[in-house]
Amino acid sequence: MRGAILYGKGDVRFEERDAPKITHSSEAIVRIAATCVCGSDLWPYRGISPFPEPTPMGHEYCGVVEEIGSAVTSVKPGQFVIGSFFASDNTCPNCRIGYQSSCQHREFVGTAQAPLVRVPLADGTLVTTPEMPSEDLIPSLVALSDVMGTGWFAADAANVKSGSTVVVVGDGAVGQLGVLSAKQLGAGRIIVMSRHESRQKLAREFGATDIVVERGDEGIAHIKELTHGIGADSVLECVGTSESMRQAIQSARRGGYVSYVGVPHGVELRGEELFFAHVHLHGGPAPVRRFLPDLIELVWDKQINPGKVFDLTLPLERVAEGYCAMDERRAIKVLLRP
Amino acid sequence: MRGAILYGKGDVRFEERDAPKITHSSEAIVRIAATCVCGSDLWPYRGISPFPEPTPMGHEYCGVVEEIGSAVTSVKPGQFVIGSFFASDNTCPNCRIGYQSSCQHREFVGTAQAPLVRVPLADGTLVTTPEMPSEDLIPSLVALSDVMGTGWFAADAANVKSGSTVVVVGDGAVGQLGVLSAKQLGAGRIIVMSRHESRQKLAREFGATDIVVERGDEGIAHIKELTHGIGADSVLECVGTSESMRQAIQSARRGGYVSYVGVPHGVELRGEELFFAHVHLHGGPAPVRRFLPDLIELVWDKQINPGKVFDLTLPLERVAEGYCAMDERRAIKVLLRP
Repeated sequence: MRGAILYGKGDVRFEERDAPKITHSSEAIVRIAATCVCGSDLWPYRGISPFPEPTPMGHEYCGVVEEIGSAVTSVKPGQFVIGSFFASDNTCPNCRIGYQSSCQHREFVGTAQAPLVRVPLADGTLVTTPEMPSEDLIPSLVALSDVMGTGWFAADAANVKSGSTVVVVGDGAVGQLGVLSAKQLGAGRIIVMSRHESRQKLAREFGATDIVVERGDEGIAHIKELTHGIGADSVLECVGTSESMRQAIQSARRGGYVSYVGVPHGVELRGEELFFAHVHLHGGPAPVRRFLPDLIELVWDKQINPGKVFDLTLPLERVAEGYCAMDERRAIKVLLRP
Repeated sequence: MRGAILYGKGDVRFEERDAPKITHSSEAIVRIAATCVCGSDLWPYRGISPFPEPTPMGHEYCGVVEEIGSAVTSVKPGQFVIGSFFASDNTCPNCRIGYQSSCQHREFVGTAQAPLVRVPLADGTLVTTPEMPSEDLIPSLVALSDVMGTGWFAADAANVKSGSTVVVVGDGAVGQLGVLSAKQLGAGRIIVMSRHESRQKLAREFGATDIVVERGDEGIAHIKELTHGIGADSVLECVGTSESMRQAIQSARRGGYVSYVGVPHGVELRGEELFFAHVHLHGGPAPVRRFLPDLIELVWDKQINPGKVFDLTLPLERVAEGYCAMDERRAIKVLLRP
């Protein structure tokens, strides 16, 4: 089969790879219905995160079970499934309290930009849909695999509740779905920090009530102005830089909640600044598996439409164009169909 | 009157100061029944936190109201009161959600090592005892003003619940009362990181079940060993250095809670390390006012005895000896009586 391989900075190729095989009795092979390009794929693509050798890519997936190992009992060939980017046993102590992305036996699923993907720990990782989904649901279902699950975790970790005033830092795909999640959780006001008109428009469609275009101290001042000088109850940091973290922390009210869900790159937090900000801070790799059953139900019942975040759909073989479009910010999020 | 004044590194003097006067209608003057020396007083005493000129000292106090401003309605002369080190109006949005130490009108009460202290925002700050306390309750009541309120906030912010496994980093006065607080909140296991035998003994009296003497990576490994490789549910960081923060974060389980209540000195947190630790982090100056009514009741009913943390009592005029004893770690916490 052919799949995406990253060779170096700006160099993704779609080429022959070995088709995955069951190597352990707990695994499953899934035939991909859709996959996508993630903002985090751009770190190595841009040469910021180093990698030693040509690397298969892709960690977002949904599709039909093709084959299962002898120990797998919860899914069977022919079922439509979605899994998280971290495979998890869903039984260890970390999983049991809802942190499956810190499963003691977690494995990164990193070869999904291909027609077939091998999923370790299939029983703990894969969640089935009620039946075979219609074509129009596919974008929203694949979004649950990471970007929507991550946006949801951002809202959950920032304690968004009915009536909350929420700030979302970042207008990328995760930020957009953080808006959707905050709206779904009943936020009363959702302020998005965004400088791009098309992204502002999408954020408003997802439920944003206010847009702040300024950054840094000016951005913080604008947030304070919009919140009677107090700051927001909940702030979702969906970027992962020092500047965005600082902006998030200073935009929260005292006693407020700040979540951060993008892998921080070069971020250092000053202890004293954090101390006097008096915020709650929580984040990390989103435990998508915790939310999958509920999110599948919301998509199935058409309560949410996270698939709207895809503004470019390409056949899988044109994956390189997808990376390029996201790198150049011509696309928010690229859907790939084998 | 005479009170404590810090002149420079290692130089505290007890000398003539102006007696406080009401300068605003919302203030009260309190005649000090007891005050103490705080671990945080040692930062300027040791020359680590600079200060520009001779500075009156002391921010822990309880005593009898001597005089009130014309606008004060909730306390009257003759009543016994306790207040926090931050005066607060207790009505602003930050106060109303329980963060009185971030009150929009907060004022630091920093002149309490003296026979009389002026307390701003008396209505929002001072809490009365049911009646005049007996002499034996005075140490525990003055402890509520900061050190006990701070230990309680550490346990509260670290989400200590019935049955929790708790780690306390630091065996100073705040750490000791963090142990008492965790015990009171129902912790099932309380592990204290301490290398000093007398402090280990006190911690056990307050409820510690295990002692870890190692620090750094060895200390973290020992905590993991004691917690089936998982880490603690709740970790109370009661020191404020980079090393202690790292130790606290790495001792918590994934999805666990870390609180920090000592002003961080030179602490930088690496974003990526925090991200993958997957912890909840919360701290800041303890909102003691939030807890005062309940803590007074617990002391009054002899449910808790935080005054046991004082291992040296001196007449106020010998305040300099108190600083010296704490600086040299000969005393955990010094009580001063005018």
